[in-house]
This record gives sequence, structure tokens and C-alpha cells, in this order.
Amino acid sequence: MPYISEERGARNSLDYRLFFKNESGQVVSPMHDIPMLAGEGVYNMVVEVPRWSNAKIEIDLKSSLNPLKQDVKKGKLRYVANCFPHHGYIWNYGAIPQTWEDPNHTDPSTNCKGDNDPIDVCEIGQKIHPRGSVVQFKVLGTFALIDEGETDWKIIGIDVTDPLAENLNDIHDVEKLMPGFLTATVEWFKIYKIPDGKPANEFAFDSKPKDREFAENVIAQTNESWKKMMSGEIEAKGTSLVNTTLGNSHSISADDAAAVVSQMLGAAADEPLPADVNKWHYVSLK
Amino acid sequence: MPYISEERGARNSLDYRLFFKNESGQVVSPMHDIPMLAGEGVYNMVVEVPRWSNAKIEIDLKSSLNPLKQDVKKGKLRYVANCFPHHGYIWNYGAIPQTWEDPNHTDPSTNCKGDNDPIDVCEIGQKIHPRGSVVQFKVLGTFALIDEGETDWKIIGIDVTDPLAENLNDIHDVEKLMPGFLTATVEWFKIYKIPDGKPANEFAFDSKPKDREFAENVIAQTNESWKKMMSGEIEAKGTSLVNTTLGNSHSISADDAAAVVSQMLGAAADEPLPADVNKWHYVSLK
Repeated sequence: MPYISEERGARNSLDYRLFFKNESGQVVSPMHDIPMLAGEGVYNMVVEVPRWSNAKIEIDLKSSLNPLKQDVKKGKLRYVANCFPHHGYIWNYGAIPQTWEDPNHTDPSTNCKGDNDPIDVCEIGQKIHPRGSVVQFKVLGTFALIDEGETDWKIIGIDVTDPLAENLNDIHDVEKLMPGFLTATVEWFKIYKIPDGKPANEFAFDSKPKDREFAENVIAQTNESWKKMMSGEIEAKGTSLVNTTLGNSHSISADDAAAVVSQMLGAAADEPLPADVNKWHYVSLK
Repeated sequence: MPYISEERGARNSLDYRLFFKNESGQVVSPMHDIPMLAGEGVYNMVVEVPRWSNAKIEIDLKSSLNPLKQDVKKGKLRYVANCFPHHGYIWNYGAIPQTWEDPNHTDPSTNCKGDNDPIDVCEIGQKIHPRGSVVQFKVLGTFALIDEGETDWKIIGIDVTDPLAENLNDIHDVEKLMPGFLTATVEWFKIYKIPDGKPANEFAFDSKPKDREFAENVIAQTNESWKKMMSGEIEAKGTSLVNTTLGNSHSISADDAAAVVSQMLGAAADEPLPADVNKWHYVSLK
């Protein structure tokens, strides 16, 4: 693994941050410095939420060097509810570096604007990848979640080292080898916010997935948007562009980057998970 | 909690054992010394497998003081496969002390003999109870699994301290408050051994659950069988009857019981789980 993670503050606390370092021990931004591609047709994924866990961890776009942090709503750390029969997230969940769903751009296929985030990935391999891993995966397809009127692509991919990876080459292979998993994925995204009092989410394309080629084109387009944001051609809506390896006007030195990390609290023992995090919620769309 | 557990050897190793001690620090048998009843209509459950875990841990009937140990098949520790969409066991799973499914006795309702084990419980509350906990629960009903021609009752119960406990008083309340959970329970038991190359399990009564009254009668009967085994009226087929509190011919002193525990390896750091324990298996009955 060429990237290692450095945690600051306690897990399950507001102070928690996870920074990334490259092989040379230099702090990097998972949004900007880690490349989108790890090889031909092989993408990098930054793991935010390991399968079967609940803490809603994400790349913090607003702060310098974009560490992972836990999402906060009304001052409280967010944990995704377990909707029966699911336990936590049902894939390793994360984002592709150097991609950006541009909130200024209306996608011609969904007719919705981007959600101002890097593109999300559901990695369906058998391993649980720890928070902060950088996983090499291949793209199989994508769903188009429409979240409060914004396009929020959910790329379906598989770890290239998974035993099933060579037999999974496009979206239709998923239903053959993992019957029910795509249906469960749609259901999961539709219902997961209902226990928090939100309405069901909707999908474009009649909740059907698009294939690998379509998905790779979507990713390429979000990579173009990221490049335009980085060059200043499009306004970065709150996203910190600080990086350490790109050699542009937002790059900072290794020492300055190390100082950003050392400003944060030191590593600490985990805080306990909330008592109700293991509750099963019974939610139905029917 | 009036009982505490003492672990010996490393988790996920053949040497692992979990012994039970009472409030006075005296070693007790979870099969014989812990009472079946904790109060009127309130039963004790010894937790063998916490919800969403895979290690098949059970009361070791054959050895003195009946510690928990991991089941072994062909020299290998057993882990239950995850059958999609389930993750590990879907309830806290364990046994009721002072019960025994007599392998000499043909149950009139199932026409099958007992499986030579204490009666099993699926506890459906929202907490995850750690391995070795002793949980107070109320009975809601039961399924009758038929495992290789033997009756293997699966009692459905709920932790009396669960927020839903006061609204769950009989088996029909489960479907109302937790729609789909009983169907998932039947499916889980039918398919869970298929990834290990075994056939699907069967249920008596057309896979329908029996109600609370029926289930409490079954438990009472297995408690009678346990009493007969303990008194010598029925032969104990390999079960150690050693205890420390019952004041009978199988009782041993606190010092002798402590010596049984200290013969075992000391506590040790966990061994790693097997690499494939998180794999999802796609199994269907159709």
C-alpha cells in the first residue's frame, strides 16, 4: 500500500480527523494528490466507510489537505441507521480522488446539477477495507441517485484483487454472480435516511444501473470538472484546493503540510459508539 | 450483572475457553449452576454468539464446568458463513441454562428426538450482547428446526430491558413491530450450512412459529429432562454434570473449580479472524 493514514483525535468524537501520507511520509490530500487512475482501467478509491459499519465518514472538502472526518448534523456525529435486513453500509463506501460533481453543471442524462462532492463508489468485493485505505478497483457500472434535486452518482466497482474480479467485467455480471445485490443497493439508498425523518431518495433511469462504459464516461467528466476547479476556470464552491504534489498555485511545502496535521489533537483512544447504533429500523417503501 | 466471564487462551484459537463466575467470584457451570429462571416469566440466556458475528461458540457440554468454546470441525474452528443479505448471526444467540433436549425422548409434536443440547435462544432486542453475557429475557414463541432428524427448538425471546419489550408479548407481536424478521429467521436457519456443502435445514409445523405458551411448555419440559439427567434418572450422554452450587453428588468445591480454570492457558491477545470470514455467499432455496 503506497498510502498510509494518520488519525488525529478520538474516533467517534468531533475532533477526529484522518490524514493521508504517501510513501515518502509526506502529507497529501486524498481529494487532489492521490491520482484518479492507478493504471489502465484501474481506479483509486479512498475508503470512507468500511462495509457493515455505521459512522458517516467523508472527505472534508472545506479544510486544508482534506482529511476524513465524521459528518455532523445539528452538532451531533452522524451514524447511518441500520434498515432491516441491512447492517450498516453494505459495501465498502468511498470516493474517487480528482473527481468533482460540479454544482454549476447540469448533467444532460439526469437533468440535475452535481452535488459538489467527489464521485462516490460502492466497492462490492469480499474484503472489508479499513477506513482510510486506498483501494484499486475496476468500474462495473453506476446508479444515478437524485438527492434533493442534485445528481449523486454511485459508481459500482470491485477491488481488482478480489477473487471474483476477473469474472466481473460489467454491470450485468453483478446480478449473475451476486443475485439481489443491485436490488438491495437501490433499496438501501432509497430508505437509509427515512429513520432520520427524511423522505425516500429517488433514482434516475427508473432505478436501473448504467453499464461500465457509461460509468467510465461519467467519471471522466467529473475528472474534467475537478481539473477546471483546480485551474480556477470554475469556482471551487468551498472546497480547499491545498495540495502538496501538484506543483500549482495551491501547493504547499511538506513542512507546512506536516504543520496542518500537528495543529490537530493527537491520536486518542476511541470514544464509545452511541447506544442505539446497533438498532434495527423497520422501514418499507410499500 | 451478577455473572462475570473469564476468558482463557486466545479468541479464534483452539485453546480458547470462556468460564463463568458468580458474584462471589466462584466458578460456576453455565449449564447447571445458572438458574433457568431469573424471575416470574423471566428466563436467563447465556450468550454464545453476539448478533452480526460469525464464530460458532457454544457451551462445551463434555468438559468440566462447561466453558464456552468454539466449535471445531475436521480440526478447524467453525465460523458461520454470511448468506446474503445477512451478516453473521442475525440475533444474539445462546442457550437457556438447566435445559436439555433429551436424545432418548421423542417429542410428540415433532415426532423427533432431542439433539442432546440445552435449548437455543434467538434474542431479538436492539443491543448486541457480548459473548458470555447472561441476559434476562422473556419468551415470545419458538420454531422447531429439524436438524438431521433431531428436534432443535429455537426459542424467540427479547431482552426484558429492550425499549420494545413491553410491546412484545407473543409471537404475533414480532411480525407487527419487526416485519420480515421471522421470515428472515426461518430463511437463515434453512440456508446457513449450504455454503459448507450441507443440505438445507427443515422446520416442523410448515416453518411456522409456535406461540409463547407453547414455547414455555417446551422449555419446562427440557428443564424436566435436565433434572432427570442431573439426578441420574436418565443417562447423561457425554455431558459433564460438574457444578459448584447445586449441592449434589456432582458438586465440587470452589477451590477445585478454580483449579479447573487455572489448568487452562492464560488469557491472550486475539488471533486474527480467517481472511474469508467477511465473504458474502449467494444462496437461494428457489
